Amino acid sequence: MFDRDGLIDKLTEEIYRRVRTEQDRESRLRRGSAIADLIGAGADRVGIRPGGAPVAASVGSLIDHTLLKPDANRRQIEALCAEAAEHRFKSVCINPTWVAHCARRLSGSGVVVCTVIGFPLGSTPPEVKAFEARRAQDDGAKELDMVINVGRLKSGEVEYVRDDIAAVCGARRPGSLVKVIIETCLLTDEEKVTACRLARDAGADFVKTSTGFAGGGATPEDVALMRSTVGNALGVKASGGVRNRDDLLAMVKAGASRIGASAGIKIVSEAGA
Amino acid sequence: MFDRDGLIDKLTEEIYRRVRTEQDRESRLRRGSAIADLIGAGADRVGIRPGGAPVAASVGSLIDHTLLKPDANRRQIEALCAEAAEHRFKSVCINPTWVAHCARRLSGSGVVVCTVIGFPLGSTPPEVKAFEARRAQDDGAKELDMVINVGRLKSGEVEYVRDDIAAVCGARRPGSLVKVIIETCLLTDEEKVTACRLARDAGADFVKTSTGFAGGGATPEDVALMRSTVGNALGVKASGGVRNRDDLLAMVKAGASRIGASAGIKIVSEAGA
Repeated sequence: MFDRDGLIDKLTEEIYRRVRTEQDRESRLRRGSAIADLIGAGADRVGIRPGGAPVAASVGSLIDHTLLKPDANRRQIEALCAEAAEHRFKSVCINPTWVAHCARRLSGSGVVVCTVIGFPLGSTPPEVKAFEARRAQDDGAKELDMVINVGRLKSGEVEYVRDDIAAVCGARRPGSLVKVIIETCLLTDEEKVTACRLARDAGADFVKTSTGFAGGGATPEDVALMRSTVGNALGVKASGGVRNRDDLLAMVKAGASRIGASAGIKIVSEAGA
Repeated sequence: MFDRDGLIDKLTEEIYRRVRTEQDRESRLRRGSAIADLIGAGADRVGIRPGGAPVAASVGSLIDHTLLKPDANRRQIEALCAEAAEHRFKSVCINPTWVAHCARRLSGSGVVVCTVIGFPLGSTPPEVKAFEARRAQDDGAKELDMVINVGRLKSGEVEYVRDDIAAVCGARRPGSLVKVIIETCLLTDEEKVTACRLARDAGADFVKTSTGFAGGGATPEDVALMRSTVGNALGVKASGGVRNRDDLLAMVKAGASRIGASAGIKIVSEAGA
């Protein structure tokens, strides 16, 4: 007989374990930063206790609350920030033009600003990505989701791809994270594994499935492949097409430790129901 | 009675006039540059003579031969360059990562390298776009197709949008051109007019309809609106969805002086038939 409650408990525990592992890791990375205390305090307030089951809001702490449409206006970006603060999402993930504004709005909220680099095509030179990464951090970004150079990977130029990732990692400041978007929907399984290894070798903090702009998003199969490739050394972010609680649970079960979604409100509402 | 031949003659004349006007303008802009002589010689060789009808190849000289897919590999990029040289297209339009390679391949061919800046979302800060523009020119790009900051335009921040365009124009070197992609499919007609005026005021050389990545491309109506807004002061580039000779003629008739297309070979084959 199908044990629904047992499965839910098991998944909840697994989510809890991964949230905790990731937060410990990020807390270490951010040690000495003023934001660390805020995040720590935030984690307590949302009910993450050793040995206890996480409350619904802890699902929110997995989520990068995302709005990357080029025509998103200031009002929509501000609404995103307000929602992220209210639901204690991990971050807002927005285009570079809005980083400074979001950093001001979210100051002291415990929500960090995530932005995108070389996005969504990944086809700018390493020096441009590094410049963009430095500028985003000047503006207040703490997380940088960069896109690999897919065309170079397709050309077999793996050193170029690794150096391109390394250029952004080289621009990373203490307390910042680099996530590497490999754009799974454009890659063969072999290329996905190669891309994850290059990200690990170049010193990235996360691998991430998708931009959401290339016609395909995260699948549990890809997340599992990426997790098995990077082991526990890196985080895995599933993004693109995560629209509800079931999607999120499937991704976490497959190995995701972070979720990029524009449907965060819906997801936490379901999780809390 | 519908005078088909008369219409074709009129269109041919109009194409001829616009090619000539644009080439004169660009020749002036490029005065003193070694490439100017090559382009001039190329125009003669493809049969553009005062008072004479252009041969099919002159349609090619309107075309930016375009391949911007993120997964385009080195072999495909090299094929694009070979095709552009063979058919005497105006330029190859490729992602920044390939500019240096294309500039080497096309050296002495009369075909220039066009690349894209802040592409396709337009949502990076002005300083990043300017840096990217300088780097692309270091690598050999002569034409820079930049995307406006659509989200700022939607927020009514017209000064930001103008300054953003001006930042790229400020990075333009003698002999280079800046085209401003307004991404028509995301704008109201009023916003299209505003964007064209801002491009003109900021010192751009062209306005351009579309990235091809936002779900919509050029329409004759938009091209006509853009042409009527910028007058003869700027070029108008129609891009996105120009797939055959009829599409091209419709765009030129509406006021386009440059065409961005991945179907250039098909277009010139039809034109020569």
